[in-house]
Amino acid sequence: MATSSHKFDPNFTDNVINAIGPKASDRTRQVMGSLIRHIHDFAREVELTTEEWMMGVQFVNSIGQISTPIRNEGQRISDVIGLESLVDEMAHHIMMDSDEAPTSSSILGPFWSPNAPFRENGDSIVISPAPGGQVALMHGKVLDVLTKKPIAGAVVDIWQASSNGKYDFQDPENQEDNNLRGKFRTNEKGEYHFYCLHPTAYSLPTDGPAGELFTLLDRHPMRPAHIHLMRLKISHKDFKPVTNQIFPKGDKYLSTDTVFAVKDDLVVEFTPLKGNEKAELELEYNIRLAPKGTAPGKEGAKL
Amino acid sequence: MATSSHKFDPNFTDNVINAIGPKASDRTRQVMGSLIRHIHDFAREVELTTEEWMMGVQFVNSIGQISTPIRNEGQRISDVIGLESLVDEMAHHIMMDSDEAPTSSSILGPFWSPNAPFRENGDSIVISPAPGGQVALMHGKVLDVLTKKPIAGAVVDIWQASSNGKYDFQDPENQEDNNLRGKFRTNEKGEYHFYCLHPTAYSLPTDGPAGELFTLLDRHPMRPAHIHLMRLKISHKDFKPVTNQIFPKGDKYLSTDTVFAVKDDLVVEFTPLKGNEKAELELEYNIRLAPKGTAPGKEGAKL
Repeated sequence: MATSSHKFDPNFTDNVINAIGPKASDRTRQVMGSLIRHIHDFAREVELTTEEWMMGVQFVNSIGQISTPIRNEGQRISDVIGLESLVDEMAHHIMMDSDEAPTSSSILGPFWSPNAPFRENGDSIVISPAPGGQVALMHGKVLDVLTKKPIAGAVVDIWQASSNGKYDFQDPENQEDNNLRGKFRTNEKGEYHFYCLHPTAYSLPTDGPAGELFTLLDRHPMRPAHIHLMRLKISHKDFKPVTNQIFPKGDKYLSTDTVFAVKDDLVVEFTPLKGNEKAELELEYNIRLAPKGTAPGKEGAKL
Repeated sequence: MATSSHKFDPNFTDNVINAIGPKASDRTRQVMGSLIRHIHDFAREVELTTEEWMMGVQFVNSIGQISTPIRNEGQRISDVIGLESLVDEMAHHIMMDSDEAPTSSSILGPFWSPNAPFRENGDSIVISPAPGGQVALMHGKVLDVLTKKPIAGAVVDIWQASSNGKYDFQDPENQEDNNLRGKFRTNEKGEYHFYCLHPTAYSLPTDGPAGELFTLLDRHPMRPAHIHLMRLKISHKDFKPVTNQIFPKGDKYLSTDTVFAVKDDLVVEFTPLKGNEKAELELEYNIRLAPKGTAPGKEGAKL
């Protein structure tokens, strides 16, 4: 039986990466090669113990085990470590000659629904009662970031949690399907308006892996008070879609958003509204969109 | 509404790491800080797209979804990217003044069972029929790596797949519980011997995320032909436990083990055995153990 001193093999990581076969795409080789190298470097850097590694394995298993068609814990964990915000930043970072950037992007999050109905300008998305909720009139224009001209026929897709901090998905006892969701088309002047709620801060669900991670990291699970008030998903065939969140000014969690999604230009101010019996607050929010073709190609080959 | 150009924030990763609270342990801060930094660096390095990120999220979710108490897909994925072998290497790398290292460690893998029965020296672990399987007499001594003296009362825990490439867990139709598993105690001369099978190469299960990963990476799913023939789990109160795998010489997958667990001194040679009606092959395998206290402390704080 041969003996050897088993010095740590300096070629180990290269061997793993070089095992990627010739039929893998260049992009796969790039992405997976980098991922494998960083995971190995991480393990070596901290001298990851067997027990810590096994905790990690069990943690990864627990992510999928609690996930359902309406609960994407993988996305949530990704949010908690800032990855979704980082990827979003890269995806939507548009290098323009102009000093003015299009409305900045923010994370889509696990609560968007593809099924939100189209509604008419002036409608309310508050379908189910929201005890303690303050109704606000939200209105604004969608503008071309380059020409500053209004864009007619743009679609504003809005969704928000109710005054109890829950989305319709999570709260079927109190909320009808598509409560606090709706799509609105801008008119010929590029304008939209509808009634919604002043948003409410809430905790991410802590009954799963994200909760364990918050405990481990000694972090709170809160999105900025009133965060997710609303997010806008905007689509128009000639303009790049933008997803963002807007955050009422003054929220105590603005600087410690547990998913790291706050950007300065997404902080907005609700103002008192008088003479409108449907709402007590008002928010004007204009959205700038960049025409397609104004950004450097960042599509990236599919894995 | 404020406007800004949203240049990529150079403090983003530090902000995420600095969100770790004061009650987190130093080790948690070290491990999770490094992990977050490497994941962010990976994402920036490859400019991970939103679509690729979402593929990753769904992939992570799928790991737990297919896992069961007897199927640890998280561990398997970790194996496929070489992480278990790397962690194992670090955990068991014992810096000794002697040129001679204790029997090198290798990955435990998902098929070890805590319930394997004690058997007597001379017993067979082949309980259920193994069509095409060749029975081998395995024997050897357990030795103190420093003094070279035999160790009496050491426990050798062995498990292996059957001739169809499956473990008892995976093959209840053909195999009784604890087929091809057993624990043996060394006698006063440090000797053990028992009957087992010459091992058989096999594929990792490809009906889940590991299979997707093999396809993506254009890699085969094979453990070296006959790999996992047997692994030894050795315990003795005064010596460090060692887990390893031994690999028959000449296997065509030795250099491309899909979990990267082969080490030179774990390659062994079965020889023909004559005059024993119970077995047609023989394997002598001596095991060296390091006394406790001979390695640098690598326990690592619990996360």
